[in-house]
Amino acid sequence: MPSHRQAVELVKAYRLLNHGPTVLVSAAAGGHRNIMAAAWAMPLDFSPPKVAVVLDKSTWTRQLLEQSGEFVLQVPTVSQVDLTEALGSSSGQSLAEQQGTDKFETFGLETFAGDVVGAPLLAGCAAWLECRLLPEPPIQQTYDMFLGEVVAAHADPRVFSNGRWHFEGHDALRTIHHVAGGHFLVDGAAVDARPLAARPAS
Amino acid sequence: MPSHRQAVELVKAYRLLNHGPTVLVSAAAGGHRNIMAAAWAMPLDFSPPKVAVVLDKSTWTRQLLEQSGEFVLQVPTVSQVDLTEALGSSSGQSLAEQQGTDKFETFGLETFAGDVVGAPLLAGCAAWLECRLLPEPPIQQTYDMFLGEVVAAHADPRVFSNGRWHFEGHDALRTIHHVAGGHFLVDGAAVDARPLAARPAS
Repeated sequence: MPSHRQAVELVKAYRLLNHGPTVLVSAAAGGHRNIMAAAWAMPLDFSPPKVAVVLDKSTWTRQLLEQSGEFVLQVPTVSQVDLTEALGSSSGQSLAEQQGTDKFETFGLETFAGDVVGAPLLAGCAAWLECRLLPEPPIQQTYDMFLGEVVAAHADPRVFSNGRWHFEGHDALRTIHHVAGGHFLVDGAAVDARPLAARPAS
Repeated sequence: MPSHRQAVELVKAYRLLNHGPTVLVSAAAGGHRNIMAAAWAMPLDFSPPKVAVVLDKSTWTRQLLEQSGEFVLQVPTVSQVDLTEALGSSSGQSLAEQQGTDKFETFGLETFAGDVVGAPLLAGCAAWLECRLLPEPPIQQTYDMFLGEVVAAHADPRVFSNGRWHFEGHDALRTIHHVAGGHFLVDGAAVDARPLAARPAS
């Protein structure tokens, strides 16, 4: 669905992750590709934009990311909640080794190419962040944490534009937050903080 | 409001942050105490539970955390959205140096003591994670990222129990997610993912 993709200026890319949504991480290397769910991701810097994501040693996405030095974080919608859980609880490596296929084929997923990174971008998401790995072997090994610089960013302009999410009228495109065991919270109302006065000195 | 605080078993403490809420970070050292807002926080491990939080070099909370080697992450509610923004845009160090006071006095904040950590816990939040700093000077210096082990955790049992958030009937206690500039998204509906079948082989 490239028609629902608009570039996000890099200085505002952190806003795609600032609200802490669950993400899907994709990577590709050596003729293989994979995609998995990750709840532990966050922005790490504004400009150049950086991100951090935790990837268990057992995951194939991690291996492909380490081989290629790049990855994509995509922000799925509530319409993709079943898919998000399925991508987080199935093994791309098993599919490749045992059936010669992958999660994209298995679940009939549509993808499109990024501007910079070779990993596939999953259609139908609310946002995409193409990232180059910032290699930090001790952090990767000790904490399973991978850092990346965002080199291109895109969002569905129906729900994100001018640096703000606006889900009103697009409930099916609201982003999601995993709690545990396939249980998610969906983004609800927006609220703007009002100035708070200091307590009068007594 | 200690009456609305219940211990959370450590193995489930990650679920207090798994949905990516904005947090308030408090720390105390040398007779000073401070509290600030941070949107960039996430779980880092299940057991023992670990967390990661990004704290800019300019923040006083960071100095107090570095001095004491401990901190508290608390999860504010939508009722505290104005306060959250105020705590994220005011300087505790200026208040201390220029007026001999702090943010707690200035905003009339009620606190209570933690079980393990010396930093104050802000009353009225939805959850609290008491943390011991895991010193990683290169990560702290290069990425402004601080890692901690959760040594005690608590939540308001009206909205979190048995490892799940349940905000229904308690809209004022819903947790919040900062986008930018005092604009927040509030947690909405909960949804459980359903099993997704693989696409039939063609």
